Amino acid sequence: MVGAKFLIVRELNLDLTPKSSTVIAVDSVGAGIGETVLVAQGSSARQTTFTKNKPVDAVIMAIVDKLDVAINDNK
Amino acid sequence: MVGAKFLIVRELNLDLTPKSSTVIAVDSVGAGIGETVLVAQGSSARQTTFTKNKPVDAVIMAIVDKLDVAINDNK
Amino acid sequence: MVGAKFLIVRELNLDLTPKSSTVIAVDSVGAGIGETVLVAQGSSARQTTFTKNKPVDAVIMAIVDKLDVAINDNK
Amino acid sequence: MVGAKFLIVRELNLDLTPKSSTVIAVDSVGAGIGETVLVAQGSSARQTTFTKNKPVDAVIMAIVDKLDVAINDNK
Amino acid sequence: MVGAKFLIVRELNLDLTPKSSTVIAVDSVGAGIGETVLVAQGSSARQTTFTKNKPVDAVIMAIVDKLDVAINDNK
Repeated sequence: MVGAKFLIVRELNLDLTPKSSTVIAVDSVGAGIGETVLVAQGSSARQTTFTKNKPVDAVIMAIVDKLDVAINDNK
Repeated sequence: MVGAKFLIVRELNLDLTPKSSTVIAVDSVGAGIGETVLVAQGSSARQTTFTKNKPVDAVIMAIVDKLDVAINDNK
Repeated sequence: MVGAKFLIVRELNLDLTPKSSTVIAVDSVGAGIGETVLVAQGSSARQTTFTKNKPVDAVIMAIVDKLDVAINDNK
Repeated sequence: MVGAKFLIVRELNLDLTPKSSTVIAVDSVGAGIGETVLVAQGSSARQTTFTKNKPVDAVIMAIVDKLDVAINDNK
Repeated sequence: MVGAKFLIVRELNLDLTPKSSTVIAVDSVGAGIGETVLVAQGSSARQTTFTKNKPVDAVIMAIVDKLDVAINDNK
């Protein structure tokens, strides 16, 4: 795991405010502080070139450019 | 992961009202906003053609047409 | 996943009253409504003939005939 | 899964009092009622001879003989 | 699992105070009491030489030397 960058990722509510829960994830995409990212957890976190066969259970695998939240409560 | 569509899925209570908890899932079935769907998480999320060997930990794998909720509390 | 029967399974407290939390699981044993069942989750849910290589993360793999609850609190 | 013994395992607090949360685990070590055990969950639960390739997501894989709890809060 | 050292790891808040939740993890790095560590859970916990093919679902895979917490709430 030499050279791995771990980031503390905060989970977000639907209104994009942070929750108190966090995840420590390896950064595979060059994310910066304050960016909204997607994290894959579990065995899926090992499906990147950098994390393959590593003891890693969370990886940042995308940076979110745009997020549409369409709340549909009358279903 | 070029072309992947991620949807924010809200968990449902037994009366189909949404919970506050959400999951970000790749859509493998062409789900629309407001539809009730089934999500597979963890390594099972990689068992579709589109998500195979991808760093994805949640996939929408079915749209729910009909849901019967038979609450049986006297057990 | 043609022909799969999904059941809504409610988690149980130690006194067998249902919790509010539920799991959507594929039925591999022919369970009926109101029966107490065992559910395997995650990759283990794919270890049945019917769910092998399917995007399924929960399976009913046993029906519980008899359950002994011996609470031992003085440990 | 013929012959499998399932036990209801209660999670413990640091002071060894039981929590309300429980796990249903296959016993691979011959644990008795009231013993403190270690449980492996998820795919790791299938890494014993008895549970290999079985739809099992929790296994008792050790009995705890001795447990030291050194609480270090001034870190 | 002869010779395995299991440690009780407490989860931390962002201000590094411990939460009440704990994880029992195999130590693969020689961690000491009071050190801040990284834990990999699930199948990822088996990606070390020592835990490979073992019924282990949590491993300490790094000791944290330095931790920067940059809270960015105005996003």
